[in-house]
Amino acid sequence: MASSDGVKINIKDIQDAAKRIEPHIHKTPVMTSSTLDSMAGRGLHFKCEIFQKIGAFKIRGAMNAVLQLLDSQPGDPKPVLVTHSSGNHAQAIALSAKIMGLQAYIAMPRNAPLVKKAAVRDYGATIVDCGVSAEDRESTSQKILKETSNSYLIPPFDHPHIITGQGTIGLELLEQVPNLDAIVVPVSGGGMLSGICITAKALKPDIKIYGAEPLNADDCAKSFAAKKRIPLPGPPNTIADGLRTSVGHITWPIIRDNVTDVITVTEEEIISAMRVVWERMKLLIEPSAAVGVAAVLSERFKAIPDLKNVAVILCGGNVDLDNLPWKK
Amino acid sequence: MASSDGVKINIKDIQDAAKRIEPHIHKTPVMTSSTLDSMAGRGLHFKCEIFQKIGAFKIRGAMNAVLQLLDSQPGDPKPVLVTHSSGNHAQAIALSAKIMGLQAYIAMPRNAPLVKKAAVRDYGATIVDCGVSAEDRESTSQKILKETSNSYLIPPFDHPHIITGQGTIGLELLEQVPNLDAIVVPVSGGGMLSGICITAKALKPDIKIYGAEPLNADDCAKSFAAKKRIPLPGPPNTIADGLRTSVGHITWPIIRDNVTDVITVTEEEIISAMRVVWERMKLLIEPSAAVGVAAVLSERFKAIPDLKNVAVILCGGNVDLDNLPWKK
Repeated sequence: MASSDGVKINIKDIQDAAKRIEPHIHKTPVMTSSTLDSMAGRGLHFKCEIFQKIGAFKIRGAMNAVLQLLDSQPGDPKPVLVTHSSGNHAQAIALSAKIMGLQAYIAMPRNAPLVKKAAVRDYGATIVDCGVSAEDRESTSQKILKETSNSYLIPPFDHPHIITGQGTIGLELLEQVPNLDAIVVPVSGGGMLSGICITAKALKPDIKIYGAEPLNADDCAKSFAAKKRIPLPGPPNTIADGLRTSVGHITWPIIRDNVTDVITVTEEEIISAMRVVWERMKLLIEPSAAVGVAAVLSERFKAIPDLKNVAVILCGGNVDLDNLPWKK
Repeated sequence: MASSDGVKINIKDIQDAAKRIEPHIHKTPVMTSSTLDSMAGRGLHFKCEIFQKIGAFKIRGAMNAVLQLLDSQPGDPKPVLVTHSSGNHAQAIALSAKIMGLQAYIAMPRNAPLVKKAAVRDYGATIVDCGVSAEDRESTSQKILKETSNSYLIPPFDHPHIITGQGTIGLELLEQVPNLDAIVVPVSGGGMLSGICITAKALKPDIKIYGAEPLNADDCAKSFAAKKRIPLPGPPNTIADGLRTSVGHITWPIIRDNVTDVITVTEEEIISAMRVVWERMKLLIEPSAAVGVAAVLSERFKAIPDLKNVAVILCGGNVDLDNLPWKK
């Protein structure tokens, strides 16, 4: 069991979540590339959550939270879903709502990628524009909650049902590649990282878990170094649009107690890693996923000994094709 | 056995080729997409040759031809490879040469994508620039052949060893998805289409094989309608840079005798299909591969009855990321 200063989540919760969401999600493949292996100096195993429904892992946590909400609120009137997200969690809640026949209201920052906003609308959810800061997003969600009846907030990461949903990535991954020495996970709010920590450490206590973070949004790295949660002072300027929030109150202690290190990467490293994966692996990853790739290709990570087989979570592939970072 | 007006190729040749090249190529996955299924109105099965070595199926035929050449020319001096290609066959010969420790000279048209030229150079082959017409390519290859000793031309498509190599795609595909009703194959010189015809018709006589071709390079469609080979009058203007040549003398009779129909698609349909596969499937396909997708999404193809499960060959993923068709 992973302590979280009050909130207890264990592997059984994650195994239950896996059974719960199994009819609604894809089991995603793990891919390899000899070119990337050469570049990293070890065996890399790419968990392709880009092929997940909505094009990102977020459907796992969202679907789990929605199903647990429906278990606790059976019958009519059906609960109304409310959330805030820069994009992938928004799509995840929108699709979960559509699948379960529920209404959803989603606060999205004005600078969220158009492709993610369009997808949310296509799933039938209602977008409410808000500012880009964490406070703006949260206050907008609270306002929607007050103005709607029988509505429930499904936060993007800092909730046990979200964390257990995202942790199911680790279950699949260790079944697909049992001999892993390490897993590298992009970190923003920390739902995916904390969930994978709980799963992987329970199933394989010696495994090492690394966070991967944009240097321009390095609250997790700073928190990890200081051994206390230090949120970002304001909205960060990073191309990794899925990694612009700070580690949460519930996710942080799990990360603190289980992660080996947090690797930061520059914007140039993110763009370069994204392009390498597009060109050499033919996988359309979004910048947030490229953060994990950039981490394993960094000199700092290459210098870590004894990691023969390393997994990298390609967490999402929702890219605005009209605004590519290498556009001339 | 498929007749080819003189050249006889049968399923055993293709099975032998599969064994021969097996240590050097990838078995590529077949992927599906509920979004694309909805758009096409049937079950689509995408054979992902984008994940093949060199990012395209061409390594199959090239490697087979090189290995058969080495069988017939054992010992020293080692044969020198010569070919002409707009890109993917060039890379395939360059990599085959590198793997087998051979020298290679490759005539490439001046308008070939930079990313393909760069890859050829990276594999250690020598590029000789030539014009864009079929005559230019062939005369340049002949010149290289005269100026080098112990050199052999490995043509890009119109050779039994190339055809049998490309036919191995069909072997894998029918093993992976036995219940196929049809296979849709992009066609240029016809090496892949004729190879798949031989394989699929031998293993599953009732299966339907469709060629997919840019309307702007529709020699195969015109030939098929006229029941005689009518090459393109000159270099065609299509974004599908891998589909700019005409069906060959050896490939044509196999296509004529085995193909059900040839579907043509416009440049707009190609670009739109390419973008849909990037956005919804997260697969980085090149325009030539999008031609097959555009074909199955066309109204003309959708009107064909009784095709429940249809495979589309995503033949390559070598795209110049600095020159995307939807670049603003």
